[in-house]
Amino acid sequence: MDNPEILPNVRVVLSHTTHPGNIGAAARAMKTMGLESLYLVNPGSFPDPKADMMACGAEDVLRKAVVCSSIDEALRDTVFVAAMTARLRDISHEVLTPREAMPLLVKFAAHNPVALLFGTEMAGLTNEEMGKSHVQIRIPANPEYSSLNLAAAVQVACYELSVAMQFEGMNLPQAEIEPARHEEVERMFVHLEQALTQIGFFRTKAQNKLMQKLRRLYARARLEQEEVNILRGILSAATRYNTRLAKNDESVEKQDE
Amino acid sequence: MDNPEILPNVRVVLSHTTHPGNIGAAARAMKTMGLESLYLVNPGSFPDPKADMMACGAEDVLRKAVVCSSIDEALRDTVFVAAMTARLRDISHEVLTPREAMPLLVKFAAHNPVALLFGTEMAGLTNEEMGKSHVQIRIPANPEYSSLNLAAAVQVACYELSVAMQFEGMNLPQAEIEPARHEEVERMFVHLEQALTQIGFFRTKAQNKLMQKLRRLYARARLEQEEVNILRGILSAATRYNTRLAKNDESVEKQDE
Repeated sequence: MDNPEILPNVRVVLSHTTHPGNIGAAARAMKTMGLESLYLVNPGSFPDPKADMMACGAEDVLRKAVVCSSIDEALRDTVFVAAMTARLRDISHEVLTPREAMPLLVKFAAHNPVALLFGTEMAGLTNEEMGKSHVQIRIPANPEYSSLNLAAAVQVACYELSVAMQFEGMNLPQAEIEPARHEEVERMFVHLEQALTQIGFFRTKAQNKLMQKLRRLYARARLEQEEVNILRGILSAATRYNTRLAKNDESVEKQDE
Repeated sequence: MDNPEILPNVRVVLSHTTHPGNIGAAARAMKTMGLESLYLVNPGSFPDPKADMMACGAEDVLRKAVVCSSIDEALRDTVFVAAMTARLRDISHEVLTPREAMPLLVKFAAHNPVALLFGTEMAGLTNEEMGKSHVQIRIPANPEYSSLNLAAAVQVACYELSVAMQFEGMNLPQAEIEPARHEEVERMFVHLEQALTQIGFFRTKAQNKLMQKLRRLYARARLEQEEVNILRGILSAATRYNTRLAKNDESVEKQDE
């Protein structure tokens, strides 16, 4: 709890939480570790007396909670998204333990908003949500019974965050880079997908899977704003060039393949 | 989860738990981290459908739970007791963070039963329970709101235990000592208190407070069985000597003061 500037930058995003009691218990878990910024994406029921009951002294966190209708809304302005997951996916992002991930989260949170993203109770994160995160965090668990309660997972994550702050928070180097914000990166992916479609890149390939792989690559890179600008500049240039070529030479499609 | 021999040696002891839902949620938290040995001291209500509901796949842990009528019964055979506490006491034992305490617990659990002791939801541990533990574990928390839910505290403790096992459990040195079992140490304290009463040690002092201080001292020492035998031997010898002296010389009481 040594860096009062860091904690307000860490938001906990609960996506499509089914049981309101879990939202309340998560708010309590957050508050015990000094976190107060809660975002709820399409919660099953909120506000709800069951949430208040489980919050047990952390009702203020619920009162301030931001209810969102999309994951992009909940991640707006963030520069780093860590998604908690209990499952291994086909196309997995960088998977870290909480102990490995939290120092990273703290580093970003020293200067910019970051998010800890939790999927719905049963199904976990969607591929879309996974694609919008930079790392996945997996709590090491009993392979035969790995299903932590949502609020218990929030507790472990926030606990590790709080411990990491005590180790890492003291002498943070000044950030020399400006990490890209979520919505800028999303715009870049839209642009990229358009450009790739335009060049026929997806014709013989699984588009979603490929986009996920690209997201994974850029997630690992932890893009800076300037890099996003550069990448989008390249996409724009490529689009312009292709358009020009297409006008002059209908055979360009064949050369690209 | 690398040392299958260690986990069965770690029991979670919940003392006087009020809400059965918390017992179920604690069982779930335990099982996610590979723990299955649950002891309940005078639970408010058990078995209870609310416990089953919150266990959510960990009902087997509840079925195997041992219900005890005293803390001594629940700690029988253990050689190391770590008590979770959220409060600082007047006479505090050695207080460790979960990260500091768990490697210690793992070390003892490699060869003998150990206990993680949790007090009741509201009041926490009694002085008696505190006195029977070797260390206190405090989860670092928001000073303005430090009240973790019972099952959330169980989750954090078991999580840290499981992480500690991965680091410490690999190449454990063989124990060269035989740590004393709980009931042997308790018998020693009974013996000690009798002996101290006999010699008039408590006449001008607060007996309970002094016994707590002595407990603290020996808790830090992590007594071996042989040492307990030696201490009890001393107490026996002292008692015999005093009895003999008292017979020969009624003035011995004065000399002792």
